[in-house]
Amino acid sequence: MKIAHKSGMSSKLVSSLREAIRLCGIKDGMTISFHHHLRDGDYIINHVCAELEAMGIRDINLHSSGLLQGCTPVINQIKSGTITGIDTTGIGANIGKELAKGIMKKPAMMRTHGGFPAAVTHGDVKIDVAFLAASSADCMGNMNGVDGSAAFGSAGYAFLGAQYAGKVVVVTDNLMDYPLKACTVDETFVDYVVKVDAIGDPAGIESGTVRLTKDPVHLRIAQYAMSVIRHSGLFQNGMSFQTGTGGPSLAVTKYLKEAMLQESIKGSFILGGVSAYSVDLLESGLFETILDTQSFDQRAIRSIRDNPNHQEISASRYANPFMPSCALDSLDVGILSAIEIDLNFNVNVHLSSDGHLMGGSGGHGDVADSAKLSIITAPLVRARTPVVVDKVLCKSTPGEVVDVLVTELGIAVNPGRPELRADLAAAGLPVCDIEELYRTAVGLTGVPCKPVFGDKVVAQVYHRTNTLLDEIFALV
Amino acid sequence: MKIAHKSGMSSKLVSSLREAIRLCGIKDGMTISFHHHLRDGDYIINHVCAELEAMGIRDINLHSSGLLQGCTPVINQIKSGTITGIDTTGIGANIGKELAKGIMKKPAMMRTHGGFPAAVTHGDVKIDVAFLAASSADCMGNMNGVDGSAAFGSAGYAFLGAQYAGKVVVVTDNLMDYPLKACTVDETFVDYVVKVDAIGDPAGIESGTVRLTKDPVHLRIAQYAMSVIRHSGLFQNGMSFQTGTGGPSLAVTKYLKEAMLQESIKGSFILGGVSAYSVDLLESGLFETILDTQSFDQRAIRSIRDNPNHQEISASRYANPFMPSCALDSLDVGILSAIEIDLNFNVNVHLSSDGHLMGGSGGHGDVADSAKLSIITAPLVRARTPVVVDKVLCKSTPGEVVDVLVTELGIAVNPGRPELRADLAAAGLPVCDIEELYRTAVGLTGVPCKPVFGDKVVAQVYHRTNTLLDEIFALV
Repeated sequence: MKIAHKSGMSSKLVSSLREAIRLCGIKDGMTISFHHHLRDGDYIINHVCAELEAMGIRDINLHSSGLLQGCTPVINQIKSGTITGIDTTGIGANIGKELAKGIMKKPAMMRTHGGFPAAVTHGDVKIDVAFLAASSADCMGNMNGVDGSAAFGSAGYAFLGAQYAGKVVVVTDNLMDYPLKACTVDETFVDYVVKVDAIGDPAGIESGTVRLTKDPVHLRIAQYAMSVIRHSGLFQNGMSFQTGTGGPSLAVTKYLKEAMLQESIKGSFILGGVSAYSVDLLESGLFETILDTQSFDQRAIRSIRDNPNHQEISASRYANPFMPSCALDSLDVGILSAIEIDLNFNVNVHLSSDGHLMGGSGGHGDVADSAKLSIITAPLVRARTPVVVDKVLCKSTPGEVVDVLVTELGIAVNPGRPELRADLAAAGLPVCDIEELYRTAVGLTGVPCKPVFGDKVVAQVYHRTNTLLDEIFALV
Repeated sequence: MKIAHKSGMSSKLVSSLREAIRLCGIKDGMTISFHHHLRDGDYIINHVCAELEAMGIRDINLHSSGLLQGCTPVINQIKSGTITGIDTTGIGANIGKELAKGIMKKPAMMRTHGGFPAAVTHGDVKIDVAFLAASSADCMGNMNGVDGSAAFGSAGYAFLGAQYAGKVVVVTDNLMDYPLKACTVDETFVDYVVKVDAIGDPAGIESGTVRLTKDPVHLRIAQYAMSVIRHSGLFQNGMSFQTGTGGPSLAVTKYLKEAMLQESIKGSFILGGVSAYSVDLLESGLFETILDTQSFDQRAIRSIRDNPNHQEISASRYANPFMPSCALDSLDVGILSAIEIDLNFNVNVHLSSDGHLMGGSGGHGDVADSAKLSIITAPLVRARTPVVVDKVLCKSTPGEVVDVLVTELGIAVNPGRPELRADLAAAGLPVCDIEELYRTAVGLTGVPCKPVFGDKVVAQVYHRTNTLLDEIFALV
């Protein structure tokens, strides 16, 4: 009775991941995409990769906004040749260790949170099939990350696959009646829906790193960073703010809250990955809204579900430099961390000081590039190794976009910002040259031995505009 | 200090519509797109078209989800040659009258609410520049239709231009601080923002047609329609429902509410254009949610702003047949109206019985095509002219997708649904052949004179899949 092409479309449910892979026509050499909001608790990336291997599919380009510790099993598919390419913004130490041994022929593509979608929207990367983990979905593929027992909050990185992949598969462990009420990605983008027993381990979603530090060195650094904000000219009504989850970075929120209450300052928005500490600033009435691309803990997950002023935004809205604008274009203050920072303010967030590949840029290069004031917070020395070095092992973020380095023993301002340096000095802050911090650090530790690298390139590090910043070599 | 390509992007505000037109590079022959949620109160379509004319731009294809009575002034730009093409889902009677005189060389393209986005997503229509009316926006182009003095509710048809146009201009009379909190289209899609004094007349947004009828004939029809629903097998928990704004169609909500309360039935979703009567069903707890592409009155506008169960959806999510699915695929019952319906159940919603072009399909063909049960409600005779005719003046919706015609004197079931006819007859409803209704109508009015058309095609009527259904000729 109805027009033929429509008849029978009453559900997109298929029986299994394998059936979805088959229906999507996944073939050797394709690019398969994931989002990483389930963090260390993710089951979907592992299950799909194992299924691809079991089906004899080879030469897959694994495109995921993150490949964290929970994805360690994909090492098997890299070794077997199922996965021969990686495109991501951050990797867990286990995968990094294997990559550094040279188990993959092609170098891994390491991008920033903005560069990752930028490479797709700009046409450099073509996604064939995207798998979207959903803590809730309906049979037509409307999905979200806020309802269900494995709720993970914002699904900000899921929009990219939804919009740009040839085929889209929603994978959920919580099938709800049609139509799902809170809808992140809607059915118009989705081809198939798979119901699984569990999309992830809720305990692994909450990253262990999101705890406020009690380390007095970290607290000192955070206090100094707050002083830098206070005297930067940006500490005023309407200020926007982003911070990372590293010890001193996160601790800045504590002092920011005190200062805002004290001086009756009300900010506009908090941006980026969101933890309980950001939610506290919102609920305290100190900020108007949160723009959230990933939620780091249960309080953030509840908040984005229940508070209309806590908004989910796409990765492109967050940080894509190839859009007409992104939220970072409007960011005032960004607090970042560093494994190493060198005399040219270049920052390394990819290699441990002994040369092991771990982590990645995340939003580091994006925030540094965009924020009116980008502050690196770092202790001078970490585990008897200097953090301030002559030359970073990996140039993850170019020094020309870093404004200030705050350590426990002094504050170095990029020579390109003389007016800021003058303001901070006038306010009585312990401003110094970065060379002084370097000499102090090396004085404490001695000049460390540098790791020895071989010839094989195991990863390429790209800036947010997808220009090559550096290459990472296998350890000898 | 920051990387060059990012520097200075702190606002997309430009001084005027003319400046936005200039910056977008609008040239002769381009396709310029609008959404019609300001309905009869729209100022933006008129202002932009007048500006294009003043700038000497010609041969524009005017692509708008609607061109209602408030757009009457664009007749001037059609006559002057600024506008030489129209692509829409419905037009006001004044524009229709002029088109019927043959003032435009090319026929107007008349599509359905689903066919309109389908022609774009399928690549048949390329939008060069989209102007998005926004009752609130910020300086980076985040916009919505729910805040501000000219709030119009859902901006469901704005997504299309946002996603597919080469350039996107947001036009608002209510500039809010960045970041706008409730965000329909976000900044990543927007190139320029223009602040104007007023985007529209709030009084014109609320269409005069959205009033519950007191006409006893209409109420009788609505009661019969409710009886058809009740005995269709679809009147059960989880039922989904859509109705139009015509007299008998809207009145069905009154009887639906009574029946659902009486039998403790709870529906799933209400779809489509939304009025206070749909909101009442939601707030009475009789439906789980509303999926809204356009809001017809102030109560609907307040509801979509304040009630998280009243969801804004895109035109594609509503009705685009070229997406993996749309909400209509899940619709149970759709109530529609008709200017004429013929012995083959074909429906005319484009031409008055005297041959004047007015209105258009809107979602008519989409709902008829998709709903498990599509019911046309219509009086047998309207203004001494039969509504049931031998052959419609325009085939707006093909009869094979219409299930039932309900009139005040009898219910005709499409011969393709014999089981439904049997069920309704068994329930004691006044079921008859459509030929009987035709004979009764003509017996009351006599066989009317048909209007006389000339040779010139003034409009082409497309089904939702953008196949040609009919052509409309100029009146002689």
